[in-house]
Amino acid sequence: MSIKRIETGPRLSRAVVYNGLVFLAGMTADDTSADVKGQTEQILAKIDKYLKEAGSDKSKLLTATIWVSDMAKFNQMNKAWDAWVSQGNQPARATVEANLANPQLQVEIQCVAAV
Amino acid sequence: MSIKRIETGPRLSRAVVYNGLVFLAGMTADDTSADVKGQTEQILAKIDKYLKEAGSDKSKLLTATIWVSDMAKFNQMNKAWDAWVSQGNQPARATVEANLANPQLQVEIQCVAAV
Amino acid sequence: MSIKRIETGPRLSRAVVYNGLVFLAGMTADDTSADVKGQTEQILAKIDKYLKEAGSDKSKLLTATIWVSDMAKFNQMNKAWDAWVSQGNQPARATVEANLANPQLQVEIQCVAAV
Repeated sequence: MSIKRIETGPRLSRAVVYNGLVFLAGMTADDTSADVKGQTEQILAKIDKYLKEAGSDKSKLLTATIWVSDMAKFNQMNKAWDAWVSQGNQPARATVEANLANPQLQVEIQCVAAV
Repeated sequence: MSIKRIETGPRLSRAVVYNGLVFLAGMTADDTSADVKGQTEQILAKIDKYLKEAGSDKSKLLTATIWVSDMAKFNQMNKAWDAWVSQGNQPARATVEANLANPQLQVEIQCVAAV
Repeated sequence: MSIKRIETGPRLSRAVVYNGLVFLAGMTADDTSADVKGQTEQILAKIDKYLKEAGSDKSKLLTATIWVSDMAKFNQMNKAWDAWVSQGNQPARATVEANLANPQLQVEIQCVAAV
């Protein structure tokens, strides 16, 4: 069974498709001047983009892991998430606190979806 | 291939079944007055429940990610885990420290199993 | 569909193979006197070993989660990763900071690969 890789760089691919599944890289915001809700919205737009390139969409999300740099901002992250997630097609999800690759990053999301 | 979702709410599903796999949400204890061993036992009972609803059971666990809020309690968490896990059918596993959705939560476990 | 488990102990298996996928346990270094680059090299050698036992190899990596105990050492970890990863076959990847099972451990990596 073949493996399809999307935006493969020297370190990682943005998405990897195999056997009916697409594994996305951990996505972070490009404009880190945004607050946690704004960063989450940027991330969810990236997830839409890479799911589409993989032949999937948010209605086929299976699971998501969310890291927030400060759990006090959990509700702000969820405002963006709840507005975006496909109604009736919510994935399994876990959210924990972690410092991310740089202090400006307030949220990172990694997903697996069906293709 | 169809996707089956279990206990789907506005934010997440408790379990998502697809292509021979079930992805569980990160599970936490309901009675957070329990110590880490007690919280882990509650979580493992929830995992049993959702695996059963998905048509699976703990002997088919493939992988687990465990977050503990304080690594000093790693051994207490493991006492509950070791007593519960299906002998000969232990999953791949990773355990790291993380603050969880509220300070009362001492452990969270997310699993993938075969169906 | 059968599940194959590799190096199954009382708590976890080092690798679990099912339905064209191999799930590896979170791998850490044995010689924790090594710096983060050295620890990462040890981990990547373990990943090679268990992927081989599962009938896979690093060119088939689908996704990796990396935990570093101190994000200031992200670049040192990446030096080992970038030198090791199969060119053109980079997996999806997420890296976050977390305290690991003991303070000597500076990095832990968990992977899923195709078989």
